[in-house]
Amino acid sequence: MKLYEQLADSIAQSIQEGVLCRGDKLPSVRQASASRNVSPSTVFQAYYLLEARGLISARERSGYFVSGGATGMPTSPEPIAQMNEELTQVDVSELVFEVLESIRVKNVIPLGSAFPSPLLFPLSNLARTMASSVQMMDPWSSVDNLSPGDANLRRQIALRYMIDGLHVAADEIIITNGALEALNLCLMAVARPGDTILIESPTFYAALQSIERVGLRAVEVPSHPRDGIDLNAMELALERHKPKACWLMTNFQNPLGSLLSDEKKKALVALLTKYQVPLIEDDVYGELYFGDKRPTPAKAFDTEGLVMHCSSFSKCLAPGYRVGWVATGRYSKAIERLKLTTTLSASAPAQVALAQYLQKGGYDKHLRSLRHTLLVNQIKFTEAIERYFPDGTRLTVPQGGYFLWVKLPDGVNALEVQRIALANGISIAPGPIFSAQKGFTDYVRLNYGHIWDARIEASLSTLGSIARDLTP
Amino acid sequence: MKLYEQLADSIAQSIQEGVLCRGDKLPSVRQASASRNVSPSTVFQAYYLLEARGLISARERSGYFVSGGATGMPTSPEPIAQMNEELTQVDVSELVFEVLESIRVKNVIPLGSAFPSPLLFPLSNLARTMASSVQMMDPWSSVDNLSPGDANLRRQIALRYMIDGLHVAADEIIITNGALEALNLCLMAVARPGDTILIESPTFYAALQSIERVGLRAVEVPSHPRDGIDLNAMELALERHKPKACWLMTNFQNPLGSLLSDEKKKALVALLTKYQVPLIEDDVYGELYFGDKRPTPAKAFDTEGLVMHCSSFSKCLAPGYRVGWVATGRYSKAIERLKLTTTLSASAPAQVALAQYLQKGGYDKHLRSLRHTLLVNQIKFTEAIERYFPDGTRLTVPQGGYFLWVKLPDGVNALEVQRIALANGISIAPGPIFSAQKGFTDYVRLNYGHIWDARIEASLSTLGSIARDLTP
Repeated sequence: MKLYEQLADSIAQSIQEGVLCRGDKLPSVRQASASRNVSPSTVFQAYYLLEARGLISARERSGYFVSGGATGMPTSPEPIAQMNEELTQVDVSELVFEVLESIRVKNVIPLGSAFPSPLLFPLSNLARTMASSVQMMDPWSSVDNLSPGDANLRRQIALRYMIDGLHVAADEIIITNGALEALNLCLMAVARPGDTILIESPTFYAALQSIERVGLRAVEVPSHPRDGIDLNAMELALERHKPKACWLMTNFQNPLGSLLSDEKKKALVALLTKYQVPLIEDDVYGELYFGDKRPTPAKAFDTEGLVMHCSSFSKCLAPGYRVGWVATGRYSKAIERLKLTTTLSASAPAQVALAQYLQKGGYDKHLRSLRHTLLVNQIKFTEAIERYFPDGTRLTVPQGGYFLWVKLPDGVNALEVQRIALANGISIAPGPIFSAQKGFTDYVRLNYGHIWDARIEASLSTLGSIARDLTP
Repeated sequence: MKLYEQLADSIAQSIQEGVLCRGDKLPSVRQASASRNVSPSTVFQAYYLLEARGLISARERSGYFVSGGATGMPTSPEPIAQMNEELTQVDVSELVFEVLESIRVKNVIPLGSAFPSPLLFPLSNLARTMASSVQMMDPWSSVDNLSPGDANLRRQIALRYMIDGLHVAADEIIITNGALEALNLCLMAVARPGDTILIESPTFYAALQSIERVGLRAVEVPSHPRDGIDLNAMELALERHKPKACWLMTNFQNPLGSLLSDEKKKALVALLTKYQVPLIEDDVYGELYFGDKRPTPAKAFDTEGLVMHCSSFSKCLAPGYRVGWVATGRYSKAIERLKLTTTLSASAPAQVALAQYLQKGGYDKHLRSLRHTLLVNQIKFTEAIERYFPDGTRLTVPQGGYFLWVKLPDGVNALEVQRIALANGISIAPGPIFSAQKGFTDYVRLNYGHIWDARIEASLSTLGSIARDLTP
């Protein structure tokens, strides 16, 4: 049993024994750290675990309080208890590749996929737009569209920022081969081999792979399924490890689905500004919100050009076109030059087609329909999980995106679930691929971005049986 | 005056004084190295210089002999005298970027461009093909086209290898965002920061930039404008520096235009196989031959999977589509994984369009027409250079491609030529951007892949005047 689990159990015992009563305030993290002689992050992890068990709850800027009782499955947030005390030399790639390669088998039910179903996109409309735009394409656009990219597309993207209340000049935008390239260019622009990068835990596995590839080290900061990265833990990590950059997702994080509030984004940017650490903001799911309006990127609160905001059209409009971008902040020159020496530019026909599609309107209508479909799917998925999955299953219901981060009953091995599920024609994404330490062994990420039908429902029933069979 | 120049002058004096007569064999490189107490590469450089001056000539596998006299400008090959005794920490990027950024100004006559005119390509035919193929595109191709790439396109490329007499399985081919990405992925697959890479001198500046970006060191081996890299010098470099890879262009090298004979390619691969050093073969100009048939890639002589053959459609069919590939040899897995973690895949619409274009035929007809245009342009360019450029100008007439590597009279500063030319609305590529040591200060690379007209002719006349004015 780990230190934070011991601490959590000891506090849980105090609650059960009535030493701590409903409504009582728990000691602050620093107090508990001092009195229990453990690190602050161990306290964070213990508190998260207790919150997950429904024993305590956090009140904004007040600390943790003993709750009235556990919240019911499946809507209770499950915390992440993986604060990494030390730097990690990342070597998760082999596992990630094995899992991703197994997932890419044809004809499986792709609940492990990172992409929503392409059938949810206006592909024939896009194809018609491309057919007309490519035939009108200026021959010299092949030269003009070199990095930083097609001028009209950059203008259209800047316009969307403006509509969302951000001022981003078209000049600040560099078009990339999807958001993945944007994120990688940002990382290379600010870090050299041996440097440390601050990431959240769990994190998108591509961040782990990039960190590993470039020869960087990771410091993992715990992230909460509901409201994202822990800023107190982050400040400790900033002080202690002097990272060269922070890479995270602010909106509907992959795999958690967490969403940072505006308040928290503001605090995040202020904190990073204090330490002058650039933020690589991965915001590929921001358009897929179920609330009233698109959640603000952290970049909106950046006054010093420290935030590199990366996004793409791959998850909400044009999968496979491989068109993404970065709003570069103060790192324009470095990023553009890296782009010029690695892939030169994004595909010109895809750029002009997307520019024309955005210009003629219809994108917002498509997005409204896509968001509605995803929300309906989410409800169907959570209902099915409640129906078919064994007791002890927990999940968070995110406010956007298309991922569910599901905690299976304690001790169920997600890699084993994945292996058996695949043999049954179903893919899932097991928890360990989202952590440098290969933790989250009893978590799975499920993709609900697929058209709901009896086959999908049957696959969830099968997954539930597999998890039940594997429950110790 | 450098050591090799002193040695060359001393030998030239012996020839002028009749100590060495026409037809006399010069001492072997090893003999001269021992007797003169200089390094073998200094002897190579001196012999190259003398060959360039027309004083001596090489006979295959026999050594150097005193010639009858100098060959006339502009058809005499000019040697490269830049054997680098030591490893070079490359830091040429700043200069390259400055020059490339200045070149990208609109409305200049683009003799410094790396691309041929897009007007030489069947763009409207391609656009029609794309219009039809994108509308028929399987929605799931966005998922299926992930690295290694569209199956049909890979098959079409394998078919072209077969027609050229090479057996390359479709499975060995990975589609990339242009050849530049292919080359970079190959480099990352076999080298780690601090490793040494063997390159030719002069070399394509992107190789220098990649080596610099990844934190590698370069050992530069002299390359001859007519028949390419010096294999004797290469063997010395292999022995001495134990490079992790060799990166070079076998066909119509950029900037030289040099072409390795089949014999020499075979010897090159045998040499690298002996030292078990992988070859990153950049062959983007191979289709642009003026001879009877496409020159063979060095990969044809590879029996151990050591050669990674990189090419693209950017220089001969579809500029701006950003579709290239690598035939990976034994490095498939590493390269595919690097691709998956950096840019994921090439643009799906561009892949399906090119696959369909290749399938329906017409590519070879286009290539015949393109080659004819380039050859006619080359003749017009060389005639104009002979007419307008000052005495002391020399150039090699390559057997393919669209670059002329022009030696200006001794002491003319190519960077100064570039600055003045740009002020006159003409871009050129100055010699120093092709060398880690920023050598070749009196060379320029001119692009003749533009439609010949009075404006182009006038620009060559202007360049000639600029060079004349700058001649000491």
